[in-house]
Amino acid sequence: MKQHQHVFKESTLNAFMALTPDHWKEARSTIQSLLSVENPTLQNDKALLSRALVPQVEATMHLPAKIGDYTDFYSSIHHATNVGIMFRSKENALMPNWKYLPVGYHGRASSVVVSGTSIHRPHGQTLVVDDAPPVFGPCRLMDFELEMAFFVGGSNRLGEPISIDKAQDHVFGFVIMNDWSARDIQKWEYIPLGPFTAKNLGTSISPWVVTTLALEPFLVDNYPQDPEPFPYLKHSDRFNFDIKLQVDLTPQGSNVSTTVCRSNYKYLYWTAKQQLAHHTVTGCNVNPGDLMGSGTISGDTSDSFGSMLELCWKGTKPVSLLDGSQRKFLQDGDTVTMKAFCEGDGYVLGFGTCTGTLLPVKP
Amino acid sequence: MKQHQHVFKESTLNAFMALTPDHWKEARSTIQSLLSVENPTLQNDKALLSRALVPQVEATMHLPAKIGDYTDFYSSIHHATNVGIMFRSKENALMPNWKYLPVGYHGRASSVVVSGTSIHRPHGQTLVVDDAPPVFGPCRLMDFELEMAFFVGGSNRLGEPISIDKAQDHVFGFVIMNDWSARDIQKWEYIPLGPFTAKNLGTSISPWVVTTLALEPFLVDNYPQDPEPFPYLKHSDRFNFDIKLQVDLTPQGSNVSTTVCRSNYKYLYWTAKQQLAHHTVTGCNVNPGDLMGSGTISGDTSDSFGSMLELCWKGTKPVSLLDGSQRKFLQDGDTVTMKAFCEGDGYVLGFGTCTGTLLPVKP
Repeated sequence: MKQHQHVFKESTLNAFMALTPDHWKEARSTIQSLLSVENPTLQNDKALLSRALVPQVEATMHLPAKIGDYTDFYSSIHHATNVGIMFRSKENALMPNWKYLPVGYHGRASSVVVSGTSIHRPHGQTLVVDDAPPVFGPCRLMDFELEMAFFVGGSNRLGEPISIDKAQDHVFGFVIMNDWSARDIQKWEYIPLGPFTAKNLGTSISPWVVTTLALEPFLVDNYPQDPEPFPYLKHSDRFNFDIKLQVDLTPQGSNVSTTVCRSNYKYLYWTAKQQLAHHTVTGCNVNPGDLMGSGTISGDTSDSFGSMLELCWKGTKPVSLLDGSQRKFLQDGDTVTMKAFCEGDGYVLGFGTCTGTLLPVKP
Repeated sequence: MKQHQHVFKESTLNAFMALTPDHWKEARSTIQSLLSVENPTLQNDKALLSRALVPQVEATMHLPAKIGDYTDFYSSIHHATNVGIMFRSKENALMPNWKYLPVGYHGRASSVVVSGTSIHRPHGQTLVVDDAPPVFGPCRLMDFELEMAFFVGGSNRLGEPISIDKAQDHVFGFVIMNDWSARDIQKWEYIPLGPFTAKNLGTSISPWVVTTLALEPFLVDNYPQDPEPFPYLKHSDRFNFDIKLQVDLTPQGSNVSTTVCRSNYKYLYWTAKQQLAHHTVTGCNVNPGDLMGSGTISGDTSDSFGSMLELCWKGTKPVSLLDGSQRKFLQDGDTVTMKAFCEGDGYVLGFGTCTGTLLPVKP
């Protein structure tokens, strides 16, 4: 890292992300050493200490990187199946391509915001009555989507896919992500080219990036895949993680939060390595600071579903909150707080929170 | 512009695009004046002249702006209808939402390249036999898409839509665009979230931006819209342009080019103002240098279709080239050159060309 000290003077992590896993490892080791009780360098130098450490409550959080491109995958089999059952049928829940490739789409990078940013309920077109003309007005079905996302480290050149063997070198680290979704707008607009204005109203991420390196103690078996993936997507090493996730909902003016969902990153069918290998298979170039969302992470039980759409099963099963109110979708003033953490032997590795409040439509 | 001279020292046009239409107008007038025969300032100062003007053949073209986000619309009614007939039926050619909103999707900004960049035929997954498993291999159905795109000028804040009345202030200018498409890969991957790896292999644009101001003499009536658009999409002033388009195809090693398509920007159903108002209606923020593609621009006659998919009607009508060969889709070594120009009274306003060669798959 000696020749690359400048990366720590930047206002974003892009330059650091542009280095290699060896550099990331060295930086991590150095910081760990400086923070350890055995090392006097920092703790005995009060002047240096006060410059190096900032109380979290006094810090303003920013996006960790300038996001060049943002992609969102759809890699939870339980989520994809739930949505498929609701909008098609149990027999045709998963599309024929779903188990052959990590379905994903390009999202809007400009509207990715840092945790704490409020989102306005949007106006848009929706189809209220089938076969009748659409109407224009406030979104009625605002939702969150519980996701995680990884930041890309390093890059590849256009026309040169990242092989599955090299993919891990480009998975810099992970954040929590809330992919705010206007369900009624999405349903009307998304055929045939995918979600557009239903998603680009804002996507929130947690500001702290937990590096892939830090997640190694929490590696678990990959999700079983059948059929066997094509060679360009196949890897035998583990690249799945036991990261506990939860979503808390707090109504406006209330001090009572309700945990409406407990899920886990490990439920994802496709790994981040597979997502990246597929993303670049036709030659797409990626850059340091690109963001890759997992898709909504739902487990296989009804309390582990990662969106209100699934939790209330398309509005048929209202969710009860601890303050006595009920929810089908989000109400104005609701604050959604997502948490992620790994439980080690006697310690917890936290991702912090990804929070945001849904404000009413602007007049 | 006096306080903003720095924008001309940048390596991209983003800072210039970040200013206002008044600034763009002033810069244009000043350049026009300096280049006019009546003005001696430049022509009498040989030293200045040699610094100010660079022979085009000696110049290396670059992308005109750092593209933060790239969006592609689907705004040609003839193209959308053609594709709909081929993949569905004549009765259900246009999706129910198509005439209510400018259908569009987020594309990949990183893989937008300048004219002259070669593109490799990609590998990917395709479904060769219905209901059989997909196969992995070289794309068999490589195609171009004749489009134009506009660069965004100025910006808006997240949560604050750009109204249709203000939209024109954000349409900086236009370029030619070739949205290279791997048709067979697209067909297998695009349900339900839209085109992904079939498009992010590369998108070419011409390097010269023709400003909206320069296009004013070529304003024509907007395409008739029925049903009437919602108020947020409605404008009575003209914002459609008579821009002649053509696509030339040159086989490898041949010096004989064939014009396979002649189309016109004016065939677009939705205007650029409507595209931008819709893009931001739920609150999406746009930035200077964002790129907005029109979608493939097809006319209503079979020689005006803007893609091989339509020209060869899904492979059923091979296109004859002047060198005696035939094409259904693109062959390795084919060079695709798109041209755009406006014919004024005794003069032509050219957009230059957008060209690229399809190289074979990498081993």
